[in-house]
Amino acid sequence: SRLEKQIKFILEIDKLKSVFRRSYVLGTNRKENDSEHSWHLSMMAIVLSEYSDSNINILKVLRMLLIHDIVEIDAGDTFCYDEKGAVDKLEREISAANRIFGLLPNDQKKEYIELWKEFEGGRTSEAMFAKSLDRLMPLLHNYHSEGKAWKENGIKHEQVFNKNKHIADGSKGLWELARSIIEKAIDRGYLSK
Amino acid sequence: SRLEKQIKFILEIDKLKSVFRRSYVLGTNRKENDSEHSWHLSMMAIVLSEYSDSNINILKVLRMLLIHDIVEIDAGDTFCYDEKGAVDKLEREISAANRIFGLLPNDQKKEYIELWKEFEGGRTSEAMFAKSLDRLMPLLHNYHSEGKAWKENGIKHEQVFNKNKHIADGSKGLWELARSIIEKAIDRGYLSK
Repeated sequence: SRLEKQIKFILEIDKLKSVFRRSYVLGTNRKENDSEHSWHLSMMAIVLSEYSDSNINILKVLRMLLIHDIVEIDAGDTFCYDEKGAVDKLEREISAANRIFGLLPNDQKKEYIELWKEFEGGRTSEAMFAKSLDRLMPLLHNYHSEGKAWKENGIKHEQVFNKNKHIADGSKGLWELARSIIEKAIDRGYLSK
Repeated sequence: SRLEKQIKFILEIDKLKSVFRRSYVLGTNRKENDSEHSWHLSMMAIVLSEYSDSNINILKVLRMLLIHDIVEIDAGDTFCYDEKGAVDKLEREISAANRIFGLLPNDQKKEYIELWKEFEGGRTSEAMFAKSLDRLMPLLHNYHSEGKAWKENGIKHEQVFNKNKHIADGSKGLWELARSIIEKAIDRGYLSK
């Protein structure tokens, strides 16, 4: 039945709690997982929506952020500075989307795959703002854990600057903040030149 | 500045990732934390919104579910069958709400405290549906981990029935499902008579 399919999907996505990222939960030695990250970004979206430079449908932004990493249950977390992993990332993620959202009734399957593609495409106002938050959060995490994940992965400040300058596509105000954090991170030696 | 206050709040709520619940992440021996639970309930809300018996503003439901456990950063998770803990729960949670949401600019502080109180009150359509999901999820988790958390805490089937019958306040369809799960849990010996 319809409800059985929906419950099967809800149980399947429990696995997002076991997909680990590179960033640390603040003040701990434990890496954050994708479900925690998705919740945290959703909170950012409601608290910081006023900084979007375009009018946005905040419900759509939330729906995007809640589902944006679900494909990683099958495809794994590809570190944003991993150029090798990026090569077949899209292919792996498309089959993941088909399998996982495919557990849902057809109308919802279609809806969530479209939403995920819109996020990945990064062209609508909602996707641009959602992606700005998805970039800003790791910057905040890294800065407030003294650059731990940057150091472990040998990340240089140009990489961080080039990745994060796209925050400006969604919000010039949040990019101002991000730029000042990157500068302070260099000054404090959290991020190498 | 306004943005500084908002970022301070966003960093503070990272602590929700270290507030552990009684239920287990499926297929693991790790207890779930409040941020994972909040994400999972938000996903349930978007997937299952069609089962609400009243018209609901789904954005409001999502905002409620995203913030509903933030007070537990200070007040801790009170197990829903803990009658002793329930005595001073509200008092502890109100001071937590004032401190944590008090990190935000005043307009947002007021907004989130109201939203949290609306959830706790359980009287509006949105709060009733949100609470139905907050009850259904642990039932699903417990059933699909063979009653592990029920057994560890000596929970009897009447307690589960009495707690969960309120799912019907938000959704008769989801209560039908919950009732059938409780019956199967008794049959399989996951839940004692």
